[in-house]
Amino acid sequence: MNINEIKDPKFLKKLSKKELQDLSTDIRKFLITSISKTGGHLSSNLGIVELTIAIHKVFNSPKDKIIFDVSHQSYVHKILTGRAPMFDTLRQYKGLSGFQKISESKHDPYEAGHSSTSLSAALGLAIGRDMNKEKNHVIAIIGDGSISNGICYEALNHIGETKTKLIIILNDNNMSISKNVGALHNHLDKIRSAKDYRNVKTKTKELMSHIPILGKPLYKGIKNLKNNFKKIYLKEGLIFEELGLNYYGPINGHDFDELELYLNAAKKSNAPVIIHVITEKGKGYPFAENDRQGKWHGVGPFDKDSGTIINNNPDKTSWSEIVSDSIIRLMNKDIVAITPAMENGSKLTKFKQMFPNNFIDVGIAEEHALILANALSLENKIPFVSIYSSFLQRGYDEVLHDIARMNSHVIIGIDRCGIVGADGETHQGIFDLTFLLPIPNIIIASPKDSIECTNLIKTAINTKSPFCIRYSKNKIDYKKTKPTEIKIGTWEQITEGSDGTLITYGDFVEESKEIIKKLKKDKINIELVNARFLKPIDTEYFNKIIKKNKPIFVYEESMKVGSLGSYLKTITNKNITIFGIPDTFVLQGKREELLKELELDTNSIYKKIKNEIRKAK
Amino acid sequence: MNINEIKDPKFLKKLSKKELQDLSTDIRKFLITSISKTGGHLSSNLGIVELTIAIHKVFNSPKDKIIFDVSHQSYVHKILTGRAPMFDTLRQYKGLSGFQKISESKHDPYEAGHSSTSLSAALGLAIGRDMNKEKNHVIAIIGDGSISNGICYEALNHIGETKTKLIIILNDNNMSISKNVGALHNHLDKIRSAKDYRNVKTKTKELMSHIPILGKPLYKGIKNLKNNFKKIYLKEGLIFEELGLNYYGPINGHDFDELELYLNAAKKSNAPVIIHVITEKGKGYPFAENDRQGKWHGVGPFDKDSGTIINNNPDKTSWSEIVSDSIIRLMNKDIVAITPAMENGSKLTKFKQMFPNNFIDVGIAEEHALILANALSLENKIPFVSIYSSFLQRGYDEVLHDIARMNSHVIIGIDRCGIVGADGETHQGIFDLTFLLPIPNIIIASPKDSIECTNLIKTAINTKSPFCIRYSKNKIDYKKTKPTEIKIGTWEQITEGSDGTLITYGDFVEESKEIIKKLKKDKINIELVNARFLKPIDTEYFNKIIKKNKPIFVYEESMKVGSLGSYLKTITNKNITIFGIPDTFVLQGKREELLKELELDTNSIYKKIKNEIRKAK
Repeated sequence: MNINEIKDPKFLKKLSKKELQDLSTDIRKFLITSISKTGGHLSSNLGIVELTIAIHKVFNSPKDKIIFDVSHQSYVHKILTGRAPMFDTLRQYKGLSGFQKISESKHDPYEAGHSSTSLSAALGLAIGRDMNKEKNHVIAIIGDGSISNGICYEALNHIGETKTKLIIILNDNNMSISKNVGALHNHLDKIRSAKDYRNVKTKTKELMSHIPILGKPLYKGIKNLKNNFKKIYLKEGLIFEELGLNYYGPINGHDFDELELYLNAAKKSNAPVIIHVITEKGKGYPFAENDRQGKWHGVGPFDKDSGTIINNNPDKTSWSEIVSDSIIRLMNKDIVAITPAMENGSKLTKFKQMFPNNFIDVGIAEEHALILANALSLENKIPFVSIYSSFLQRGYDEVLHDIARMNSHVIIGIDRCGIVGADGETHQGIFDLTFLLPIPNIIIASPKDSIECTNLIKTAINTKSPFCIRYSKNKIDYKKTKPTEIKIGTWEQITEGSDGTLITYGDFVEESKEIIKKLKKDKINIELVNARFLKPIDTEYFNKIIKKNKPIFVYEESMKVGSLGSYLKTITNKNITIFGIPDTFVLQGKREELLKELELDTNSIYKKIKNEIRKAK
Repeated sequence: MNINEIKDPKFLKKLSKKELQDLSTDIRKFLITSISKTGGHLSSNLGIVELTIAIHKVFNSPKDKIIFDVSHQSYVHKILTGRAPMFDTLRQYKGLSGFQKISESKHDPYEAGHSSTSLSAALGLAIGRDMNKEKNHVIAIIGDGSISNGICYEALNHIGETKTKLIIILNDNNMSISKNVGALHNHLDKIRSAKDYRNVKTKTKELMSHIPILGKPLYKGIKNLKNNFKKIYLKEGLIFEELGLNYYGPINGHDFDELELYLNAAKKSNAPVIIHVITEKGKGYPFAENDRQGKWHGVGPFDKDSGTIINNNPDKTSWSEIVSDSIIRLMNKDIVAITPAMENGSKLTKFKQMFPNNFIDVGIAEEHALILANALSLENKIPFVSIYSSFLQRGYDEVLHDIARMNSHVIIGIDRCGIVGADGETHQGIFDLTFLLPIPNIIIASPKDSIECTNLIKTAINTKSPFCIRYSKNKIDYKKTKPTEIKIGTWEQITEGSDGTLITYGDFVEESKEIIKKLKKDKINIELVNARFLKPIDTEYFNKIIKKNKPIFVYEESMKVGSLGSYLKTITNKNITIFGIPDTFVLQGKREELLKELELDTNSIYKKIKNEIRKAK
């Protein structure tokens, strides 16, 4: 069928099993073709096609509320709710969001981007429903990686106590973003791989064939079946049952009969239910099916026939890669690399292969990762926690209360700082500096290039304090020289200039060189300073800048309030102009587009500095 | 025995059961007498006397590392490790800390103050030990309230996977700080209250009488016993076993025989073990034993004979009380009060009794509390989340990613802002403003007095945005008038003055009035401004202040970098002097002592303003 003509999920009610299967095939084709052009989250959406269709067939959205955890796997939901025609704008500037978005559709009852919020959100919607005396269903779809985060446990703990009607669908594809880890995972593994699972499935089908119509008798049957499952086939008890939820499963997430059977059963339950659904990530696209590293999780444009991911910048290297490789170059027996489920994103696979005993993937557990690192440092290990800027938000208290307060030697590699582009406002790395700067004891640095990056990592390894190194999602030239330490709290002059000073750091150093060149053509000579240490700052150098009594500019890819410029203004009464991100969330788009919209592109800054200097002269 | 003479826990090894029991009695007497004078955490320490003694008898601190979660219950540990003589300085300026402190003793291997970090910390110490090829034990003691936080689940998940040697003691007293909540609690409850628990205990003793010497045979006995416990008496499976830990218990936490038996068994295990110990909070002090509200959790000085808590300020009312009472006065059917285990601290008991269907205690689960609140607001409820400033640090991402980004109508009552005193650096509420100000969409207000407080709450209820109201641990006069809304983003002039302007907010408004009076005697007339809205600020008023071209001072009980003064400097190039907390953690002590040390007391500020004004004249 023409996927673009779908307006509303109601049409699913009348479809036969064969028609649903055909629809699945069509949706998969649409997804592969569409995402091959725009990039986006492929594997998880391919894995959830039948499940999403079955949910929309059994339930009535938007009355019934369907929440996708993280919601990068909500593409099929978007297609079924009439958003297919917008897929050519997916994750682009002013285009379709890669996540659920309340403003985009009445079928999106919650929003996310960060993982593991869906159970708490579902419970809130359910309690609100009960208070409002409404009768709708609330369904949360969550992956086996996301459910291992602590927030889910807090929510399950509360759900098991309230006993309110609520359906959780555990979408178990045996991967989080990289390979899954943790005891819960092992537990699920055990259930999944129980020898008799195939028999159970056969049995389910046999049982179903004896049930002529859906309704009460079936529900009873399912209840017994469920108990049988547990009694006969699953020797391990189930965490969820112990927490007070009814557990159904595991069931085949690509079989419409099984899905509808259990979803209808859950629909009729008056207590919270968790349905454990086994799906295959990447299903229908062999390259993605065989991926175990998460390469096809979030992907750029690719050639769909050859499965070749298009690399627009083959000569450039990602900051993640440079950082990871630098650590390998500087490796000693005490370094322990820790990642919260971001082995692939943080480019730590090579490190893991070379030093398996010095690598820890804790799963999606940022808080635990940071406390663990802190304790390791007390045993004289040198933990390097690699974490995205926006996910470090989850570990704010652990950075403050544990690492900084105890002044521990923990290195935090803050990846994806600044504008990240297509992932939009939940992923922009523009707050970390604002929340880290006020914390005592922390050293914060941002390298301008690969050589400085390696040197800063060497410095961090040899310094006995909490040390944050910030870097972006961009790709740059990877050059190698012999690593040398950089004196902590020193800035670097890039160009001399007598008309004023431009202070910047990270990727903006490169961009500022262009600005300086342009200004030079206008006979304006600006001193360019690489403020590679954001804390402590280079007080001596900064005082010299102040004494010049010329205009000072701070240019940063961070919130304007609370970042370096704001900090410098706190310690001086000198006139400083800050170019930073205003008090607003930054939506999705290409970095260049967004910088332009924020008037932080090189051309805008060039003009602004020219104006200011001319006014001052 | 003379408690003050204890230097080291080694002496315990030789003591008989009778001597251990006598020691327990002496320690309880010491605790009650000492805490009645200084104030401190009473109930939890009285409950853990035998358990702490048994741990120190069985293990060898400091080689073996003993971590107390939160560590407000580490007083007995402090006594046994030679710190009894310092108890008269407990929680006082430069005195004994109320928590474990590495700098205080080699017997303190980790530090905390916030809950639920101990399991992650223990795992980090254990993994570090393994990497270092050491052989020591790591023991974490954690309460049944703390273990319900998500971080513990992340840690258990990881511990169950690593299978490294590690001992967790679940100190189950059926209370967190207030009454415990959640499904895990219900689960523990079920285990605890199993009809046959008493029989199990009897049986344990019988079994023990057949075991002549400790050692391998005993260990096997215990293992069987443990399995018997589970098989025969506990029909529910156990969450911990499913997560891959060996579970022993529940055992009587006041019985030295049982404690030593199981601790020795755990000591010999090569896998992670969790020992479930039942203790009675407040044991040995009847007033505390009968407390179900947490009144005797953290307590000020009291009369030990009558159990009367000394109230130094009988005419004053806590901000928590005023806020809670204001909500009761302004109650409507949509308001839902949410607390993360702080019913008593946040003075919400009356609210709960009056509106049980509009009250939710989620347990120690700040992150879940905030997402739940956000979802409730989407169902047109008006959630009021009451949370301490330092604990809101745990929910930073949920405030940003969920509440602020979705611009939801959630009211956050931020309690314990500013200097909190005796709890020290983990509890100072001096960071919230720095991490909230850069977040878009949020409204932040600090009332100067009770009337303004009620008015701000009315404003928050009628505003459709995220609204934070900040207030301190201090007590003030509670006056009531008819509540009226305050226009958002308006400041208030308290006194006129032509020589300069002092901008302040919250409790410092009252303190600034004194400063203004003193300055007046020196013929210096300062305009005093109550910046009750910290975001958005009163731009119109602030512009007027700037135009006066007189010195501007900002006086705040918050980190200097990133707070109001810093923000005001970001938006103007006008000379502003900020009086705030410098880049350092603030230790324990009375608020007055600490303000003096930080040169933020009224006298210091008076002098500084006088100097500045004289310079400017």
